[in-house]
Amino acid sequence: MKVHIIGTGLIGGSFALDIKEQFPEAEITGIDANESHLEEALEKGIIDATGTLEELSLADVVILAVPVDVSRNLLLKVMEMAGEDTLIFDAGSTKNGICTAVAGHPNRRKYLAAHPIAGTEYSGPGAAIKGLFRGKTNIICEVEKTAFKLQERALEIFQKLGMRIRYMDPAAHDKHIAYVSHLSHISSFMLGKTVLEKEKNEKDIFDLAGSGFASTVRLAKSSPAMWTPIFAQNKENVLETLDEYIKNLSNFRDLLKEEDYDGVFLEMEKTNHIKTILNGIN
Amino acid sequence: MKVHIIGTGLIGGSFALDIKEQFPEAEITGIDANESHLEEALEKGIIDATGTLEELSLADVVILAVPVDVSRNLLLKVMEMAGEDTLIFDAGSTKNGICTAVAGHPNRRKYLAAHPIAGTEYSGPGAAIKGLFRGKTNIICEVEKTAFKLQERALEIFQKLGMRIRYMDPAAHDKHIAYVSHLSHISSFMLGKTVLEKEKNEKDIFDLAGSGFASTVRLAKSSPAMWTPIFAQNKENVLETLDEYIKNLSNFRDLLKEEDYDGVFLEMEKTNHIKTILNGIN
Repeated sequence: MKVHIIGTGLIGGSFALDIKEQFPEAEITGIDANESHLEEALEKGIIDATGTLEELSLADVVILAVPVDVSRNLLLKVMEMAGEDTLIFDAGSTKNGICTAVAGHPNRRKYLAAHPIAGTEYSGPGAAIKGLFRGKTNIICEVEKTAFKLQERALEIFQKLGMRIRYMDPAAHDKHIAYVSHLSHISSFMLGKTVLEKEKNEKDIFDLAGSGFASTVRLAKSSPAMWTPIFAQNKENVLETLDEYIKNLSNFRDLLKEEDYDGVFLEMEKTNHIKTILNGIN
Repeated sequence: MKVHIIGTGLIGGSFALDIKEQFPEAEITGIDANESHLEEALEKGIIDATGTLEELSLADVVILAVPVDVSRNLLLKVMEMAGEDTLIFDAGSTKNGICTAVAGHPNRRKYLAAHPIAGTEYSGPGAAIKGLFRGKTNIICEVEKTAFKLQERALEIFQKLGMRIRYMDPAAHDKHIAYVSHLSHISSFMLGKTVLEKEKNEKDIFDLAGSGFASTVRLAKSSPAMWTPIFAQNKENVLETLDEYIKNLSNFRDLLKEEDYDGVFLEMEKTNHIKTILNGIN
């Protein structure tokens, strides 16, 4: 099985590591606009060789693991250069725009729209880890638009990598993921910003931070180059979540300002049952 | 060493476990308004016996580990009932109010104001864990107001439990901790609320949540009974942090709405160096 991975960072690199383990005969070729990433991936043995888009006609699988603004344009080119029997899937955090961009394309059936809910706050080939996808959800959109044989090939890979599959409409995906992923990143970045700004005047503030703060602000380590195009592509949904979040925070602020402590208590108690929901998430 | 622990929950119970391990001769007596907590702590061997406030005159150490509204009143009573040579310390997340409440009290020298930055989002004796305090920061306020001999006894305990000590003014403590702890809890609770509200209409939303969301919303599992009085006692500082946080979120929202993606990128990039700061926090 010839696998070409475009984007040899955290996601692409982790796919490479797991595919190599599950399919020992697989040949993994890396393609990356970032030369130093490509060298690092090769040195670390994440990929077997480096390649070019021109070779995609021979590939069995092409994995697009680049920022979502790059992948939307690149996918059209890849669909042209890939062979008739080549499976292409992406791993982007937005699905509506990319599905719309390829709708009605004569080679649409080569492409499977995927979003594995897996990752860490780190990036680059050095962040790639084995088993990243085990037990994680992989959302597949418009599965019926992918050729049967290629659906089958994709599912075999996802299954061997240990993913649980969910099928969704791309618009519903973007709406839901704005709530459970995109908003978390903004809340974390802005929390980090608020504390960093304060630290300019009040030194040593971070010396007092405990594990609770570290957990809440963890996502503020994420890559701005990856997240800016995600927010751009999912702008309307993200704005909706942000408006609701700001409204809830302002309401909490007002309760506290008015010393309505029963109200403050209730706000927290109503949210407390998130415990039972979170227990199922790693 | 006779140790009386008032409040046998997460913090009191974890103190009991570690003190028993580090001071094998210690007798640990538990006092708790919650009878079932007391029974559970006894059954689990966290405490050796149950007791009453009347016995405090014989105690070497009294640890106050109850919600901060309870401890502010209870401390005055405990200072009266404790012996001349009894060390009393608390573990509350606010320090200005309690220090003010006991300022000038004839028994002030029995009390040491402490705040170990340690805990989890769980509560009750079942949440007590060994080694909770190892490597964690313990903030001590107004140390000079505690009797020398009792300072020494407290520091021996904190040291054996593996804590790093920081000395602070109570007003500065409350201001700093609003940023690195109290605000995180509100941001997390309101994030949880925003997503739960959405889930009423859009089922299965949590099925898509990954580890990033779980991390950001972890603190929303915390106890409202513990946190309401903390926010009440630290109201002014918490309101200040909340205003700044809401301002930063609204600004991010405006950049996104205006499609100023360079601005969105910069907002994240400026905060990104929190990576280097967070690496030192467990």
